Formats: sequence, C-alpha cells, structure tokens
Amino acid sequence: MLNTNNKILVVGSVAYDSVETHAGKRVDALGGSASYFAIAASYFATPTVVAVVGEDFDRTHIEFFESRNIDLSGLQIKSGATFRWVGKYDPNNLNYRETIDTQLNVFAEFKPKLGAEHKSIDVFFLANIQPALQMEVLKQAGSKPKIVAMDSMNLWIENNKDDLLKLIPKTDILFLDETELRQLTGMKNLIEASKSIIDLGPRVVIVKKGEHGLLMISIDVENSFSLFACPALPVDPVIDPTGAGDSFAGGFMGHLASIGKNISELSSQDLRKAAVYGTIMGSFTVQGFSIEKLKIVSDNQIENRYNEFVNLTTIS
Amino acid sequence: MLNTNNKILVVGSVAYDSVETHAGKRVDALGGSASYFAIAASYFATPTVVAVVGEDFDRTHIEFFESRNIDLSGLQIKSGATFRWVGKYDPNNLNYRETIDTQLNVFAEFKPKLGAEHKSIDVFFLANIQPALQMEVLKQAGSKPKIVAMDSMNLWIENNKDDLLKLIPKTDILFLDETELRQLTGMKNLIEASKSIIDLGPRVVIVKKGEHGLLMISIDVENSFSLFACPALPVDPVIDPTGAGDSFAGGFMGHLASIGKNISELSSQDLRKAAVYGTIMGSFTVQGFSIEKLKIVSDNQIENRYNEFVNLTTIS
Repeated sequence: MLNTNNKILVVGSVAYDSVETHAGKRVDALGGSASYFAIAASYFATPTVVAVVGEDFDRTHIEFFESRNIDLSGLQIKSGATFRWVGKYDPNNLNYRETIDTQLNVFAEFKPKLGAEHKSIDVFFLANIQPALQMEVLKQAGSKPKIVAMDSMNLWIENNKDDLLKLIPKTDILFLDETELRQLTGMKNLIEASKSIIDLGPRVVIVKKGEHGLLMISIDVENSFSLFACPALPVDPVIDPTGAGDSFAGGFMGHLASIGKNISELSSQDLRKAAVYGTIMGSFTVQGFSIEKLKIVSDNQIENRYNEFVNLTTIS
Repeated sequence: MLNTNNKILVVGSVAYDSVETHAGKRVDALGGSASYFAIAASYFATPTVVAVVGEDFDRTHIEFFESRNIDLSGLQIKSGATFRWVGKYDPNNLNYRETIDTQLNVFAEFKPKLGAEHKSIDVFFLANIQPALQMEVLKQAGSKPKIVAMDSMNLWIENNKDDLLKLIPKTDILFLDETELRQLTGMKNLIEASKSIIDLGPRVVIVKKGEHGLLMISIDVENSFSLFACPALPVDPVIDPTGAGDSFAGGFMGHLASIGKNISELSSQDLRKAAVYGTIMGSFTVQGFSIEKLKIVSDNQIENRYNEFVNLTTIS
C-alpha cells in the first residue's frame, strides 16, 4: 500500500558521495544508506531518520526530505563535515567498484539517540553501521519493535563478528549479499547458509545478488519455510548502482510497515510483495546518479513497474 | 506434455568426457551436446540423434539411448576413437572450468547426413558445432522445419562470424550465454542485444546466465514482444554442471516439439513453459556426473519440480 502514515525508523548514514560511472560523474551528491532507504520507504510509509551530518549539510536536502514527509527529529547536526565517500565504477562492469576515498568526519563519533517518540515506532531498519551501534539502538528502543531488520558488510563480519552474532538473534530480517552471507556462515550453499541464520532467530534472509536479483528464504505466518527467487527488473540504461541495495530495503520494509503486521503474522505473499516493491525501488535508483531518479518517482510509475515485474516472471 | 511421439532431431556431439569437480571425478563418461539434449528431450518427445562416434563407443550407451526411445539411425560409427574432452572445475566456483584436453578424433571429419526419414522431422536443434555444418544440415533438410533452434560458442563467434550471420536468419530460436551474446552483437545491454538478433529473423533469444538462470526475449503468436526472467531451480548439492545448457535446450525444445506448433504459432505461455521445463531438466543434470542423474528421472519428479518452480517464483 502506498503512502500510509505508518511509521518506520532507519538508523544509518547520510553522506556526500562523489561517484564516477561510464555515464558521467557527480561530486558531493546526496548519498548514504539512511538517505536512500528513507526516500524509497517514503512512497509506502512515514520514515524517521536517525543519523548525523555536519554543519556543511545543504539546507536544500533537509527541505527535500521534509517534502517527502520524512521526519528528521533524529538527525543530529554536529560541528564538522558530513561523511564523504568517493568511488569509481568499472566502466565495463558495474559489479566492480573502487573506493577512492572515505572521510568519516562527523560519522566517526556517531552515537544514535532515540527520542521518546522514536521508541514507539513499530518497524526498525538498522542500516549498515557498526554492530555495536545497531545493538545500542535496540537497547534504547526498550521493548522489541514489531519488525527489526538489519544490513551489514564484510568489514564488520571480519572485525566484529562476535558483536554481529549477538545482534542477529535480536533481529527478524537480515539483508546480505551472497559473498557476505557465505563469509558470515562459512557455508557455500546459499539456502543452507540462510537456514543457519534462521536457526539463530531471524525469520527472513534476503540474499542480494546485484543485477541477478535475490533469493529470499523465510518462515511465514504458518511457520512454513518458503523460498522466493526474485530477478532484478531490467532497466536501460543503468546510470549508477550506488544505493540500489538500500533502496531495495526501503521499498521492502516500507511495504511491510504499510501492512502493519508483526513479523510472525506476515504471510509468504506479504514478504514476496515486499521483495517486488523493493526490487522496483532499486530499479529506479540505478536509473540516475544519487537520488536523482528515486526522488521523482510517481505512485503510478511504481504500480506500472509492479505490473511489469508480474509480466516478467509469470509463467502462464 | 510428457512422452509424446512427436519427433525432434538434434545434430551435435556424442563424446567421452573426463571431468573433475569438488565432488569427485569421472573418466570417459558419456557426454556431448547431442547426448544431453536427446536424453532431456526424450521425456517429452521422440529424439533422433545425428552425430558420429568411434568404434570404441560402448554398446551399453547405444542400448541406453534405445531404452529411452531415442532413434540412432543418424548416428555414424567411424573407424577411430570417439571425441574426448577433459575438464576440471574450480572447486570453489563451478562457474569456472579449465579445458585440460580436447581430442576431436572422428568428430574432426564429421559430416552430418540426413536420411529421407529425418528430413520430415518438424523440430531441429543444431547443437554447438561449426556454423557451416549447421547450415549444411538445414540445406539437406530442404523445406524449413516448423522450428529450428541453434546453439553456438565463442570459438565460432571469433573465427566464423560470417557463417554465423548467414545461418542466424534461417533459425527461429537462438541459445547463447550472456558473454557470447555480447561478443556476437557488440552490445552490452542483453535486451538490446537480443532485439538486434530478433531483427535478423529469429523469434526467440535465450540468454543463459548459468546459476542465475536466464532471460528469454521473444515474439509471440500475436507478434508481441515478451520478456521472461527465469531463475535457476536451486538444487543441493551441485555435483557437475557439464551438460546443463544442452539439457536445458533438450527440455525446452522437447516441450515445444510435444506441442506440435509452428514457430509463429507459439504463445508467450508456450515459450515460458518450455523455459521452465528446460530449467528443470538442467537442474537434474547438475545433480550428477555425466548423465547419471538425468537418465533416472521419473515423470513424477519432473512434474514435482515444475510445481516447485511455480512456488519459487509466484508472487501471490
């Protein structure tokens, strides 16, 4: 359901990205996991962003977030510069990118702080930040939200695996790419690896495969095991893949927030629809640099792509 | 439809493969594109194999083909040794394999010869052999069969591109992997590249993506353009991927042969069902070395996997 008032909270980064692809380049464009997530989710629900930026953060971005009904009461503005990332994609293969520079700036000291009004939000997304900070957010929340989802990355799997393994049982949905999942579990087979995560507590594992789509392994309301293969929606041309994964998560979690159920009440169909909405939001993001395409999407375009996806995958 | 008497002809290789994977090895096991294709197709239709073997070819293989109702009247037995291929897969990544040895033997002088009874067969599959030989088969056939499909490879795209470009307009269905399609067309985008093939005459392009499944771009009976994303069916464990592509083609073409339509009469649904049956036959092949698993499949198992595939991909 589009445009509900149901709330969803994201903790993550708001950043300035400088990106070069075969299609051109942008300098200090709006980026960061929380930005992509919140904008994608804003088509389905009402997001709250918990993040930090520097004093250099442009007022027009604040105004844009507000125009999308995104609550910035959890956005800290600290003295110093905003987190910056500089990256370059292989012009012949967008699956490969090189990080040229990372300046954490104010993000280095980021301590997420939840206000009283944040603690009652039903759906949380812990974007890819240090596992200890993700845990801290859950502690501040007090009683467990209806749905908690998390993302992570190779850096934390290598260096903070113990923290991750303490965090995972407190979450319901895990987003990882196939390499990260194999690295985390030591298992090659993606389904076995996902089942081993489900044994730790989560009910849903999303295995992201970039341009090849994703596999979703889940336990539904009837406690049945379900496997969903979801291809990417082909778009042409792809301009910049940055933020596709967080936009996917935003569409996925935004749809779940719009339904309003507890994690254990979700049907296999609820989860599959969420995966399709996620796929659609990711498909918009890759069609422009930064949030250039994602921010101008219409509800009609989302529903048209939903039908396009159904056509792409229905056998008969 | 399973087990029809409708005929289908394949021209390709029958070989002895020696293969090593993480799961073990086999020496001089039955292989070759025509073998995999014919066995997979035999669950749907009645295949005729046009190929060559040496005098060393084991009588038990002949008996096995016959037990599957495969017509060997086009199989030449020449003095000399059967085609041999030796390959080794990366134990950590089955997408990578090294060819250790290729001995063409009697295959070096292979001249396909169609008998009168072969020329009236409605469905032809030109497996991956030299484009000039594929063309020779169509010339011998005389009037165009109802459906002609072809496979090819990087070697012919590099060295015999002119022959290929003469052949493609005489075919209806082209099977290529994504790298080969890009190499053939010089286009990066798989959909644009497929459309440029369709502009040459074929109505269907199957872009194979290995463990990631395939994209099918086609023109259906209503002259509508259709795009189908078909994931692979996950199986565990994968033992040996050799022959998966030819088994896919066998299931795909076998299903089309069982329907009995002309290429221009096929609906988008006919083609999509064919892609699913192809995927299923490929999924059996990778579960064993050589044809060890493919040869012992039951009709029930095929229909069970069809339902499994529907569950894997249906949104709601």
